[in-house]
Amino acid sequence: MKTIEMNTIENLKWRYATKKFDASQKLAEEEIDILKEAIQLSPSSYGLQLFKVMDVRDELTRKALQPAAWGQTQIVDASNLFVFAAKTKFDDSDVDNYVHLKASSNGMDPSSFKGYSDFVKGKLSGMSEEEYQNWTKRQVYIALGNLMTVGAELKIDICPMEGFEAEKFDEILGLKSKGYTSTVNATIGYRSEEDSTADSPKIRKSVEDLFEIL
Amino acid sequence: MKTIEMNTIENLKWRYATKKFDASQKLAEEEIDILKEAIQLSPSSYGLQLFKVMDVRDELTRKALQPAAWGQTQIVDASNLFVFAAKTKFDDSDVDNYVHLKASSNGMDPSSFKGYSDFVKGKLSGMSEEEYQNWTKRQVYIALGNLMTVGAELKIDICPMEGFEAEKFDEILGLKSKGYTSTVNATIGYRSEEDSTADSPKIRKSVEDLFEIL
Repeated sequence: MKTIEMNTIENLKWRYATKKFDASQKLAEEEIDILKEAIQLSPSSYGLQLFKVMDVRDELTRKALQPAAWGQTQIVDASNLFVFAAKTKFDDSDVDNYVHLKASSNGMDPSSFKGYSDFVKGKLSGMSEEEYQNWTKRQVYIALGNLMTVGAELKIDICPMEGFEAEKFDEILGLKSKGYTSTVNATIGYRSEEDSTADSPKIRKSVEDLFEIL
Repeated sequence: MKTIEMNTIENLKWRYATKKFDASQKLAEEEIDILKEAIQLSPSSYGLQLFKVMDVRDELTRKALQPAAWGQTQIVDASNLFVFAAKTKFDDSDVDNYVHLKASSNGMDPSSFKGYSDFVKGKLSGMSEEEYQNWTKRQVYIALGNLMTVGAELKIDICPMEGFEAEKFDEILGLKSKGYTSTVNATIGYRSEEDSTADSPKIRKSVEDLFEIL
């Protein structure tokens, strides 16, 4: 059996949902690149990655978003704001784009993947718009989870946020016309020394409560 | 700026959705414990962790589940099968249990958190049953994403699976009466040498396609 050294677990214990960021501390571009790569490499159903991430840097846009996020200060104080937006409607290009990427990576013709392509298109076109959105939104949460873990590995603070008005975010970020809807946000940066919640004990159900062995 | 050493990114490139497991290779209990801790430590909305994970070890149960998962071999060949099950209906205990845990961790009286408790109960009781389930299912995907990343760190292979009949899984695993529904599976173990998909290039959209800077 391999020897297990698991800094990741220690880093997961270190992380917390940051309530107050130090607005003076900014991430280096190199760090932002790694966080983006973590999101990019995140698995998704059928490999389709049916989401976009808005990396909102413009201060005025951040200020405009804040009231639509219950006024939470992280929206403007964090070094970076990633708004995860899920695709709202299925169309064949969701699958065609993937197949073209796969074919070119393998040096094959896209038609080699016709069986797979037809299968996935059949599955997805059979979903109602609501089912489709619920499903694309779930995929986003895999990438969100991965972002938070990789952030913790880099000792970068991240606060995930579901408390916001999606319609207003969509309007401000111009998402609707692009076929996406804002799903969840990640505010990213460094904790303020004034954030006393950083020292609160982490509250989790016990492994025994969470798991059932059958 | 800190020096960035990011093995995690390399490990994310290493992982893939394992199509064929080596049925003779089993995880050590110590490894399973770490994966469970990764799930346990995963963030969730309001910290509520409204899911259970069924750690299905019984061979006959695994065999019974296989036909309800399109006959996929990973269900029986993988060392371990985790079935993530989301809570189906809101009740006050969702919040009360958390508040009791938080109060006892802080050496405080649960009544100190009444404001918070009322706020969260108000939010959740205002959801329809469908909204509630869609929301609890999304939370599960954070833990799934985290499991896959921590698995990759340990060079443990994991294949996530959405292709299964949830109702049949619920019946076989006795989930309905417990108030949970099966949401997504993780098959966990070691890749078979015969799994040629392990060598396929990883297909991902470019960072430029996935992100938009505003």
